[in-house]
Amino acid sequence: MSELPTRESIQEAHRRIAPYIHRTPILTNESIDHAAGASLFFKTENFQKVGAFKARGALNAILALKEQGKLESVGTHSSGNHAQALAKAAALVGIKAHIVMPTSAPAVKKAAVLDYGGEVIECEPTLEARESTLKNVIRETGAVEIHPYNDYLVIEGQATAAKELIEDVDEPLDMIITPVGGGGLLSGSILSSKYYSPETDVYAGEPEGADDAFKSLQAGKIIPSVKPDTIADGLLTSLGEKGWSIIKGGVRDIITVSDAEILKSMKWLWERAKIVVEPSGAVPLAAVLKRPEIFKGQNVGIIISGGNVDVGKILDAYY
Amino acid sequence: MSELPTRESIQEAHRRIAPYIHRTPILTNESIDHAAGASLFFKTENFQKVGAFKARGALNAILALKEQGKLESVGTHSSGNHAQALAKAAALVGIKAHIVMPTSAPAVKKAAVLDYGGEVIECEPTLEARESTLKNVIRETGAVEIHPYNDYLVIEGQATAAKELIEDVDEPLDMIITPVGGGGLLSGSILSSKYYSPETDVYAGEPEGADDAFKSLQAGKIIPSVKPDTIADGLLTSLGEKGWSIIKGGVRDIITVSDAEILKSMKWLWERAKIVVEPSGAVPLAAVLKRPEIFKGQNVGIIISGGNVDVGKILDAYY
Repeated sequence: MSELPTRESIQEAHRRIAPYIHRTPILTNESIDHAAGASLFFKTENFQKVGAFKARGALNAILALKEQGKLESVGTHSSGNHAQALAKAAALVGIKAHIVMPTSAPAVKKAAVLDYGGEVIECEPTLEARESTLKNVIRETGAVEIHPYNDYLVIEGQATAAKELIEDVDEPLDMIITPVGGGGLLSGSILSSKYYSPETDVYAGEPEGADDAFKSLQAGKIIPSVKPDTIADGLLTSLGEKGWSIIKGGVRDIITVSDAEILKSMKWLWERAKIVVEPSGAVPLAAVLKRPEIFKGQNVGIIISGGNVDVGKILDAYY
Repeated sequence: MSELPTRESIQEAHRRIAPYIHRTPILTNESIDHAAGASLFFKTENFQKVGAFKARGALNAILALKEQGKLESVGTHSSGNHAQALAKAAALVGIKAHIVMPTSAPAVKKAAVLDYGGEVIECEPTLEARESTLKNVIRETGAVEIHPYNDYLVIEGQATAAKELIEDVDEPLDMIITPVGGGGLLSGSILSSKYYSPETDVYAGEPEGADDAFKSLQAGKIIPSVKPDTIADGLLTSLGEKGWSIIKGGVRDIITVSDAEILKSMKWLWERAKIVVEPSGAVPLAAVLKRPEIFKGQNVGIIISGGNVDVGKILDAYY
């Protein structure tokens, strides 16, 4: 149905979603720069609608399919930010969203989907149950599946974050670094770099406990994670085929980091940059701090992927 | 020495400090707007250098005095953000900063002043001890005192935050609201509104436990706080004469809020807007939420004054 995003199709996607997303600001921070020995430009997608870059891909997919006139309802399985993003985007165009969520998903995330008018279908917390439940839902409702990352329209939408980053930083970026989970944000960033700033190398940071992209890059083929385990709960998923086709020849390197390193970077971002970042969003900074020999003296664009942590609980534990 | 800031002098101050400060972004948030029933534009001075708008006033005072050629060292007493701001600004122009700090000031704040190359002189935690110690330091060193708020050059610098807010929001602002402690930010915002956006009314939020500005406005003269007590530790100080001279005829109203209301707004800003805000910085939002009949349907600029909370402790209590 959809094809590998081109320079033009990403521009078109950007025009399509721009009225409905935040053009999130770029922040810089002297103290973190000093520690990193580099000039870091933080693209704050934690400020994005629904608190994560996922708003871009979901919106682009739904709006693009709607333009083609063939969309009555959408479906997906997701326990995280994509669920909310899809429900919100569906509400925007007045169609129904069927979201399969594992019973283990936090109540607050289910509530958010319902708030946006989405329908939540619960299932056992296994990939098999999620996929079979979604298949049933699609058969019964005729919904179009919008996969969280293994979808070129979604990748095209995610690509707009790096496009804005490139456009909004006055100096040329030597590097861009993103987290990698399913690969949507990373593959989109690789495409935007290739089309709009070919001198910019794209790196990724990945949790050691969910290092399928790192292993896949070494092996030259997809090696899915087995029992991934990391504090960066947005990055538990394994690479999709479509993202991998872009990542394998396009990423400069993938740097793995421990949960302790992720947590330290997250604290720095809260404390020094004053932004609320979820563990997944702190992974690229952790990678930059871990491998100073790569980034020293460079202009580095860092995509802060999201800010959906349970702040209420965190503050209640203290105040 | 210095005089009531004019339209031109604030513009000049802005040119003077612009190379050394962040032009902090304006954030909007659908969910908070929905709750407030208004369009809120958050001016994020928590992202400012030293984590607070105080960088503006301290820089303007030091740079302006330096231009006049008469500055060899500066002094102040402060337990908070002004101490860091002054030490950092002094370091920038290569002069010495003597900072009188009460023994009760947090070690982390003393360390920050020392990091910027400032000299810390400790004293008993009373206003009398702070003032007499500073007097001695000034006599011994010949330092020029830069008061945290009772100083027109400082007020002129703080005015640039509201000036940027007015310039950077595309729509006309019906109102601007700031917190009020010593009155530097509020009086500066009143001047910028008067000069650059005369249709904009300026409001202030103030903690119930430190409501000297509210009482002063009612009485028509300065009524200092007696034993102020609030979670908003940046707002414990009472109004200065210079700020008061601007505030008394210029502020539309001052709205007091409880610590519980401040904390609730702070949580919303962390949770929904994904920004780390100190309690003082959440006071204006608390005021807007408390008095919907004033703000409903309006475009409201909210100055988030700072983000210096002990994030390390907060996160350590949870993770």
